[in-house]
Amino acid sequence: MSRFWSALVDKLTPYVPGEQPKGTALVKLNTNENPYGPSAKVLAALKEEAAESLRLYPDPNGDRLKEAVADFYDLSPRQVFVGNGSDEVLAHTFQALLKQSQPILAPDISYSFYPVYCGLYGVDCLTIPLNDRFEIDLADYRRPNGGIIFSNPNAPTGCLLPLAAIESLLEANRDSVVVVDEAYIDFGGDSAAALVAHYPNLLVIQTLSKSRSLAGLRVGFALGDEALIEALERVKNSFNSYPLDRFAITGGAVAMEDLEYFEQCRQRIITSRDALAVTLQGLGFQVLPSAANFLFARHPEESAEMVAQRLREKGIIVRYFNKPRIDQFLRITVGTEEECGKLCAALEEILHSS
Amino acid sequence: MSRFWSALVDKLTPYVPGEQPKGTALVKLNTNENPYGPSAKVLAALKEEAAESLRLYPDPNGDRLKEAVADFYDLSPRQVFVGNGSDEVLAHTFQALLKQSQPILAPDISYSFYPVYCGLYGVDCLTIPLNDRFEIDLADYRRPNGGIIFSNPNAPTGCLLPLAAIESLLEANRDSVVVVDEAYIDFGGDSAAALVAHYPNLLVIQTLSKSRSLAGLRVGFALGDEALIEALERVKNSFNSYPLDRFAITGGAVAMEDLEYFEQCRQRIITSRDALAVTLQGLGFQVLPSAANFLFARHPEESAEMVAQRLREKGIIVRYFNKPRIDQFLRITVGTEEECGKLCAALEEILHSS
Repeated sequence: MSRFWSALVDKLTPYVPGEQPKGTALVKLNTNENPYGPSAKVLAALKEEAAESLRLYPDPNGDRLKEAVADFYDLSPRQVFVGNGSDEVLAHTFQALLKQSQPILAPDISYSFYPVYCGLYGVDCLTIPLNDRFEIDLADYRRPNGGIIFSNPNAPTGCLLPLAAIESLLEANRDSVVVVDEAYIDFGGDSAAALVAHYPNLLVIQTLSKSRSLAGLRVGFALGDEALIEALERVKNSFNSYPLDRFAITGGAVAMEDLEYFEQCRQRIITSRDALAVTLQGLGFQVLPSAANFLFARHPEESAEMVAQRLREKGIIVRYFNKPRIDQFLRITVGTEEECGKLCAALEEILHSS
Repeated sequence: MSRFWSALVDKLTPYVPGEQPKGTALVKLNTNENPYGPSAKVLAALKEEAAESLRLYPDPNGDRLKEAVADFYDLSPRQVFVGNGSDEVLAHTFQALLKQSQPILAPDISYSFYPVYCGLYGVDCLTIPLNDRFEIDLADYRRPNGGIIFSNPNAPTGCLLPLAAIESLLEANRDSVVVVDEAYIDFGGDSAAALVAHYPNLLVIQTLSKSRSLAGLRVGFALGDEALIEALERVKNSFNSYPLDRFAITGGAVAMEDLEYFEQCRQRIITSRDALAVTLQGLGFQVLPSAANFLFARHPEESAEMVAQRLREKGIIVRYFNKPRIDQFLRITVGTEEECGKLCAALEEILHSS
């Protein structure tokens, strides 16, 4: 620390993202990126943005992107907030909506950035344990709270809550904001976007990093009642007027509009995921049911840390969390058919040699 | 307001950026963009980024960009922080370094986002009036403080402080952070980057939006002692791991490397600015001496608000601030030679008809 730091800085425990190796030789199954590139229409539109007009500021409101998101979900652009990746959208959400006099509720095992935001904004959080099947049980969230946040499907487990369970929570919890973080929803769940018109306290957050293959472009959004969106806009406009550059606004909009590629790409990943789960089970892994583009799996006899290490030696990286309850699991991104094949072959070698 | 908002949201007074009109018919001299597009090398590199690799997250540290900035200023990459425009860098600076037990000091007339950040992070600020020539007098800043921030050249005045004055302030003010916001420094001043190695409490902030013609790409950076940079990194990594997308990292780096285009472009603007100042003086305007890519001018007989309105009717937009002390001034961005010509012709008509 340094005497020039604010009191906050020393207390922060920053988030540590998964490794982004700079070489390309590795089979990268560690940060849940899409194994297929963005739509050709997106790439063509992005090339056109590399032009003289970059000298000009982007639209501070990102209206073109808001309209494309609103059209996709049959909402009004005033029910849409856009940000520099869903991480930025989440950060503003913690500051604008989840900092309340009572603690918020969140699962003990979920996106590990949530406690970091709590530290950044001084938000109290009560963590609610997942049940023995590693599922969120929303009955456990029926208690006084300053807000509720969870991922659906949850990360890193991949487990999905049905929309009816979320609606039932919303019915019972009318006095605080419920945030449903849907980074992975397109790989197997129904979005709570359909409930936005009915529940003024529901905020749905999504990203274009996963199902739209645009992790490198940094685009996320929130859907909610106009009053919730206004809170996010007020914080955003007190932080950075132009968080989305010209590429992000245009590329994000075109990605939302290209329904055909989106559908084709996510179906392909769903098919690969289900096949990979069967193969891993055949190798002795217990695999949690996943509605995401990753699998969360543990082997009854082998140390997850050792398996991750041996995979890395073979040029394959997966994510291992050295954390209570989940330190016997590996989180494995669903890659291309070829990558999944390499992974399974490597796992077979590792398990047979140990 | 809404019952779902945090207590902070209702109290915020968000920043209002200059208008970004969606048509292209207007002569846009209102937000200090560069009238010339980015370097051809930047555009070529950006086109290459529109590729399959967008499916992958960018480098969370933006190392390529940090190295290019460090090379330009002969510093170490560990003395460089990069962010999503200098607005994001400034926001993190207020939270990480300027939130202290004593109030910070800032000019009464300066970048109008500073008080907004103070509101967002609960930073107390004592404003120090510019002198009668609308200059910052650093002798006025020699008093106890929790930090000092000013723009150099200042905005919206364009007035420059010499480096010796800044060094003398740094000599006298060793116990708090001094932030020099150099958005416009390349149009006529010496960067305080040269002092970074000598003063561990100096933070210099710059943007690629002005002299590098990349307002649409959102790239800014800070230069300072490693401990100051570490504070910014800790806040950034508690807020958003990947604030710069693949375009911003690559385009920003190439822009820093293309010295020839940078030099040619800024010299052209300096020449236009000086010619425009002479013409405006010929029309009766008082023009503050400017080291930026804009002029701050008032007419002794005409209302600035009226002139701005009449210019707009003629398809030319400039910035008018309805604020104490400066409500008789117009801030006029230096455009191309052709745009400056149109502006002067329109002003001549307006002044002669009134």
